[in-house]
Amino acid sequence: MTLYETLADDIESQIQKGVYRHGDRLPSVRQTSQQRQISITTVIRAYLLLESRGLIVSRPQSGYFVNLREGDGPLQGHALSTSKPIAISATVDVSRLVLSTLRSISAGDAVPLGSPYPDPTAFPFEKLNRYAYAAGRDESLRGLKDALPPGHPKLIRQIARRYLEKGMTVDPADVIITVGATEAINLCLQAVAKPGDVIAVESPTFYAMLHAIERMGMKAIEVATHPEQGIDVAALAAIVESQPVAACMVMPNFQNPLGFQMPDARKRELVEFAAKADMPIIENGVYNELYYGSAYPSSLKSYDRNGLVLHCSSFSKTLTSAYRIGWALPGRYRDQVEKLKFLNTLTTASIPQLAIAEFLERDGYEHHLRRIRKAYAQQANLMKAMVSRFFPDGTGMSGPAGGYVLWVELPPKVNAMQLYELALERGITIGPGYMFSTSDSYRNFIRLNYSSPWSAEIEQAVITVGKLAATCAR
Amino acid sequence: MTLYETLADDIESQIQKGVYRHGDRLPSVRQTSQQRQISITTVIRAYLLLESRGLIVSRPQSGYFVNLREGDGPLQGHALSTSKPIAISATVDVSRLVLSTLRSISAGDAVPLGSPYPDPTAFPFEKLNRYAYAAGRDESLRGLKDALPPGHPKLIRQIARRYLEKGMTVDPADVIITVGATEAINLCLQAVAKPGDVIAVESPTFYAMLHAIERMGMKAIEVATHPEQGIDVAALAAIVESQPVAACMVMPNFQNPLGFQMPDARKRELVEFAAKADMPIIENGVYNELYYGSAYPSSLKSYDRNGLVLHCSSFSKTLTSAYRIGWALPGRYRDQVEKLKFLNTLTTASIPQLAIAEFLERDGYEHHLRRIRKAYAQQANLMKAMVSRFFPDGTGMSGPAGGYVLWVELPPKVNAMQLYELALERGITIGPGYMFSTSDSYRNFIRLNYSSPWSAEIEQAVITVGKLAATCAR
Repeated sequence: MTLYETLADDIESQIQKGVYRHGDRLPSVRQTSQQRQISITTVIRAYLLLESRGLIVSRPQSGYFVNLREGDGPLQGHALSTSKPIAISATVDVSRLVLSTLRSISAGDAVPLGSPYPDPTAFPFEKLNRYAYAAGRDESLRGLKDALPPGHPKLIRQIARRYLEKGMTVDPADVIITVGATEAINLCLQAVAKPGDVIAVESPTFYAMLHAIERMGMKAIEVATHPEQGIDVAALAAIVESQPVAACMVMPNFQNPLGFQMPDARKRELVEFAAKADMPIIENGVYNELYYGSAYPSSLKSYDRNGLVLHCSSFSKTLTSAYRIGWALPGRYRDQVEKLKFLNTLTTASIPQLAIAEFLERDGYEHHLRRIRKAYAQQANLMKAMVSRFFPDGTGMSGPAGGYVLWVELPPKVNAMQLYELALERGITIGPGYMFSTSDSYRNFIRLNYSSPWSAEIEQAVITVGKLAATCAR
Repeated sequence: MTLYETLADDIESQIQKGVYRHGDRLPSVRQTSQQRQISITTVIRAYLLLESRGLIVSRPQSGYFVNLREGDGPLQGHALSTSKPIAISATVDVSRLVLSTLRSISAGDAVPLGSPYPDPTAFPFEKLNRYAYAAGRDESLRGLKDALPPGHPKLIRQIARRYLEKGMTVDPADVIITVGATEAINLCLQAVAKPGDVIAVESPTFYAMLHAIERMGMKAIEVATHPEQGIDVAALAAIVESQPVAACMVMPNFQNPLGFQMPDARKRELVEFAAKADMPIIENGVYNELYYGSAYPSSLKSYDRNGLVLHCSSFSKTLTSAYRIGWALPGRYRDQVEKLKFLNTLTTASIPQLAIAEFLERDGYEHHLRRIRKAYAQQANLMKAMVSRFFPDGTGMSGPAGGYVLWVELPPKVNAMQLYELALERGITIGPGYMFSTSDSYRNFIRLNYSSPWSAEIEQAVITVGKLAATCAR
């Protein structure tokens, strides 16, 4: 227990004992700091933690107040509303902006609030590296011959086994190993659509999906998306009725950037619609393991009776992004995807495949996942509390059910690109909303990454971005 | 020195002393075996070695004869003539055949005469594996951020340095690291042409080039190609005059399957034509390091003054194919290729990049290359001698100047696919000519791989294929 956690627990128990009641004002940060002889930062962190637990709220210029009523809705920021994109298909050209943003994230030691990556220090890298070394001593892996698509049988078995444990039956023969989920999504898209075709996507949508569309010279059409329930199936159906749509790409669990988990009923509805419309769905499931709830979320794939769902995932968010190992379950498009894999990169390196297979077989993957899930869930609360406290009036935010990003709606006057530049000058990166759409719809939105272990530096960076946003909002 | 080498040296010295003269018949294999009390296999191998040295020739049903005259042309098999493909652009669909062939090569322990791979036992794998382990301990590599395109700066520097040492100036800023040469070729092709476009290729052409064309839904047009001088620039010019050609893909050094090295004058002529026609050339240079001659062969890229040559290569033929590390020098298309790399697979894994960079920096790559060049050159002679001796009359073959494959023209009656099936039943794979063309032009051709260290098993496999070919030729 750190000092601020001890303080938070102490205040929490006083609230629960009735020492402080609903509506009471807590002692100011300065008072508590002096009373208890601890630093101001520690008190702020304790208050933020209590705020994230929903026990207190902050009111600008007034201080912190006890807030015991349940169901009072989100913190300070308002909830987001369903997106209402204009249903026009558009050519896609977001990759240059994304690449330059990712570059600036990589450069030097900017605070990576704009990063799309998970916390690399959470990866079990020493173990994987030892397994890779052992695999590298295996002479049978020195050639390419065992690495031909679909991939190394040991890893394929482990992947199928994990799905089975989670309640989804996967035939190992249906798994194709790829160079990360990026390649899986590319291959699946190419298997179901051709250049010029229109692809339906969520709004906002994860730019990796837009990239695949851009790479193939296809067009994207954005579909209204509820911030907690996901893509609006009726809106999708209306679009499909009005024009040919070759496929739909979605991220039903912990969507980047919205963080929602589609309710099971809506997942089923989407898959049933796809069957009726005979339209393939490409499902990006890379965040599935990072749920905050009590159970592993269902995949669209598990409702699929027609082989129309092409499910893609990877180990890059949970075990290591350095190995570039992903996979596809392409349903009825299996053979095309396997052939395209062969054409695109010939094979996936087998040493990292075997290293991961060893880890899955031998080393408490579940235990590892529980640890990172818990950390990300806590950090989500901290990030929400910080934004709630330090961002200008009129700020809204998502309520992530998993993953490690928060989607923040800033007051309409804020231009996220300008904010991005201002933050960068101060050594902080953020993810501007432009990256998540083919239109201008998210010019006042930003994505904040909270995967890094919480630190004073991150706290200060969030405060700085909040202040800059307030300036831009004027 | 092995026993058969000692015997060969002994007979060679007798020839040089005049004990045997030009046209003399050597003692039969059986006689020599009895005289010297050594096995028949050893004698055959010694005779084959002498044949490969050009000192003796075999005449069917007559035995081995001393052959001291110089310039007597090739061994038994006739030289190949320039290909004369019909200049019709065709959609490409060879990948299924190639993949199933590669699968049969991988299955069990078939003798891999059909393999496209170099000898994996020649790879410095222990060292690379140790470097990979050390790189895996570097925390900065655990995330993705240092792995963004264009690739790891250390490896890029090493690649640029090597070109410089070979006399070609390469700006490190022009290098893009890829998942093997396969991805490099794909990205370069996508950067210069679009679906439906026509791409000029050699005839026969390496199927990896056809795969890239197939993946993008482009069309291939085959251009007449001389078996020792490469693509016929006049024939290419005639095609370009008659129809729009978006790009040309060639392998100027040690082309797979022909093995030629384009003379410098012809390389220059090709690049000058491309400049005049403003047509990009994709150059596949993966075999460049495997020359048998005295010097590193020039690349088309070294004659390029307009940034029109997109040069692709990899470490898969020289250091390890298991790491999947290649690169592109895309000339004026650099930015497009970098963007496409990002879209296609996001990043290339950085641990293997660093392991290779370490090896290049510290461990006598040149020495390693000299060793494999020498081995492949010797094995080329052995393979040519074996085909010359054991294949039916009317067999022709290439004269590889580098690499590790021999292209064999069988009598017209032989159907290479049938031969492939028959050989496979006997546990031997061969590369059927169908894989190297969009047409039926090479139905009586096969590609033989001689990268494996010579063995009695390989010898026996070549003899078996020769006998099967003779049966098919009847």
